[in-house]
Amino acid sequence: MHPLFAGLGTTIFEEMSGLARQHGALNLGQGFPDGDGPEDVRRAAADALMTRSNQYPPMAGLPELREAVAEHYNRLQGLAITPEHVLVTSGATEALAAAILALVDEGDEVLLIQPMYDAYRPLVLRAGGVPRYLSLRPPHWRLTAAEVDAAFAGGPKLVIFNDPLNPAARAFDAGEIALLAAACRRHGTIALCDEVWEHVLFDGREHRPLIGEPGMAAQAVKIGSAGKIFSMTGWKVGFVIADPALLQPIARAHQFLTFTTPPALQIGVAYGLAKDEAHFREARLGYQRSRDVLAEGLTRAGFRVLPSEGTYFLCADLAASGFAEADRAFCMRAVHEAGVVAIPVSAFYHEAPETGIIRLCFAKQDAMLAEGVARLASLR
Amino acid sequence: MHPLFAGLGTTIFEEMSGLARQHGALNLGQGFPDGDGPEDVRRAAADALMTRSNQYPPMAGLPELREAVAEHYNRLQGLAITPEHVLVTSGATEALAAAILALVDEGDEVLLIQPMYDAYRPLVLRAGGVPRYLSLRPPHWRLTAAEVDAAFAGGPKLVIFNDPLNPAARAFDAGEIALLAAACRRHGTIALCDEVWEHVLFDGREHRPLIGEPGMAAQAVKIGSAGKIFSMTGWKVGFVIADPALLQPIARAHQFLTFTTPPALQIGVAYGLAKDEAHFREARLGYQRSRDVLAEGLTRAGFRVLPSEGTYFLCADLAASGFAEADRAFCMRAVHEAGVVAIPVSAFYHEAPETGIIRLCFAKQDAMLAEGVARLASLR
Ligand SMILES: CSCCC(=O)C(=O)O
Ligand SMILES: CSCCC(=O)C(=O)O
Repeated sequence: MHPLFAGLGTTIFEEMSGLARQHGALNLGQGFPDGDGPEDVRRAAADALMTRSNQYPPMAGLPELREAVAEHYNRLQGLAITPEHVLVTSGATEALAAAILALVDEGDEVLLIQPMYDAYRPLVLRAGGVPRYLSLRPPHWRLTAAEVDAAFAGGPKLVIFNDPLNPAARAFDAGEIALLAAACRRHGTIALCDEVWEHVLFDGREHRPLIGEPGMAAQAVKIGSAGKIFSMTGWKVGFVIADPALLQPIARAHQFLTFTTPPALQIGVAYGLAKDEAHFREARLGYQRSRDVLAEGLTRAGFRVLPSEGTYFLCADLAASGFAEADRAFCMRAVHEAGVVAIPVSAFYHEAPETGIIRLCFAKQDAMLAEGVARLASLR
Repeated sequence: MHPLFAGLGTTIFEEMSGLARQHGALNLGQGFPDGDGPEDVRRAAADALMTRSNQYPPMAGLPELREAVAEHYNRLQGLAITPEHVLVTSGATEALAAAILALVDEGDEVLLIQPMYDAYRPLVLRAGGVPRYLSLRPPHWRLTAAEVDAAFAGGPKLVIFNDPLNPAARAFDAGEIALLAAACRRHGTIALCDEVWEHVLFDGREHRPLIGEPGMAAQAVKIGSAGKIFSMTGWKVGFVIADPALLQPIARAHQFLTFTTPPALQIGVAYGLAKDEAHFREARLGYQRSRDVLAEGLTRAGFRVLPSEGTYFLCADLAASGFAEADRAFCMRAVHEAGVVAIPVSAFYHEAPETGIIRLCFAKQDAMLAEGVARLASLR
């Protein structure tokens, strides 16, 4: 028995969604939208189930999807990749697992940027890596040159970079991206870029993939998620984008983790990725409107909300909102006393957690957001 | 970079399927049927894509599928499990990966039974385990008491047991199962049972799950595959069955490997597993007929075929069929000179490979099997 998994609890997302089901609470915790996802994309997959092969597709993904992924990123993010740069995985989580198991060897130093998604640290530990931490702090969650320099001092083999950053809802700016790219180049560090929120960006921001920075093409691994792009988090179709030489060991790990991904869903995703920019713009404007509804509601109710530049999430500062409790205690009281689920941001830290911030998911109908605000306000 | 994956080639199945595509050859290599899979099961999944939630299902699987899996095995294999014994994974490969990463710690001895599926050894090595081997040999591929005793002498933490056994097409009998269960009990060894071929059994054989043997309920982990059960290998819906205490660390590993599995496919599988025994009997009779078509064709063409008790596969003994080459050389010549793909059984061994046996997949239309026989015969 490996002590890591034997000693691990369930994820904070499952725990809080479980509490939501158990108490019939409003779930503003786990990050999933309450919409259905685009009907034509679902239809393309449903048709493929009935009319196309349901046998093993090639291990690296259906050629038509690898093609569509390359075309999509070249068109929308100015990359210059080919299908040989693309590996299809069973969701972004599998992409992360395959990349970490392939790229991290026993004793390798891996830099994690806190707050961090909860899968990173266990995967790095299981791979034999030695995590180091760079901590971002509210309300700005900014990367500074001094902190980046200090964090890279040990010459990490890998840095995991989540941009836009869940739960902080930061989209890193050109200066921060350049800082990180420079540090990676200087130390020969590979950047594993979890960009699952790349399309969920607000106020006219454009996503800048680190792999597109000068000198980073062969030193970065970009991870994307069709579930996030099409607002269907259960689809579990992800992509790894990397230089073919770097992609190869990741594909080897993938072949023994899931081997391949259901072809009908791959066909649906390939269809969807070809949509024109207007489709993706409209989707993000929808989320931006929901962000504004929640932010304005909470502000009117006396909460101090932090800026949300991207992702499905908005953070609130408990102390500045007049609550004396730590985030976890607040979230537990919110479920039990107000029937609303939020996520404590301390769950995204391993070292020196930030304990005064909660995260709310706004990818919901207006009525549900209004009800969430009313319930949270009742906690005073 | 981890040296294991950096140094690994593609799987023998991908390699041979790639050659088949490249040369337009008849593919009797990789194990997938050329049928479409049950239309009603595909329809149930297609309807779910259009009418049910496409967001994250619970990490352990949809309650209706966990229920259906328990009911299915209790009814067809006489188990007495509950939904709490069931974890849904993104295919049996992910189930294996999660189980191995959860159950194998640095330095743990893991017993592998050769010939073995190609994922086992890399996963065990990546988990830090130390593989030991018990080798079965043609034409009988039988487990004997002396060999089992010798193989368990070191007190392995885990044994991986594939029954029915790919590529040998063996379904282990009651005596062999009892031998293995006794050895596991004596040494406190956990049995990881890859039973993906459990429904593909011939000549009236019944599958005996090791987890059903006396004293094994809390010491065995059973893995199943909906893709194999419903002849749709691309679906990638698998199950892990184990005592809840043993299942828990496996679920923790699963949550960081894929987290969850597409709900629409889970709904299709839940629908299918409820079918009556006649459905599964008919499916296996269909495969049995195909086995007979290939076996008789090859025999008439002067090949010496080994018995096939289960799986999609039939082995042939090259020397006894009048070919002097080793299996790999024969398979290469078969692609290039005859346009037919087979799998060399030596690829399933790490130590002391058996080099005189090839494996053919008979889950194909009669006409394709006849053509395969004719092409193989042309190699004389
Ligand atoms: C896999 S559950 C977590 C979903 C998510 O991205 C989040 O809530 O942060
Ligand atoms: C995942 S490809 C291998 C399929 C199979 O089970 C086999 O051919 O043995």
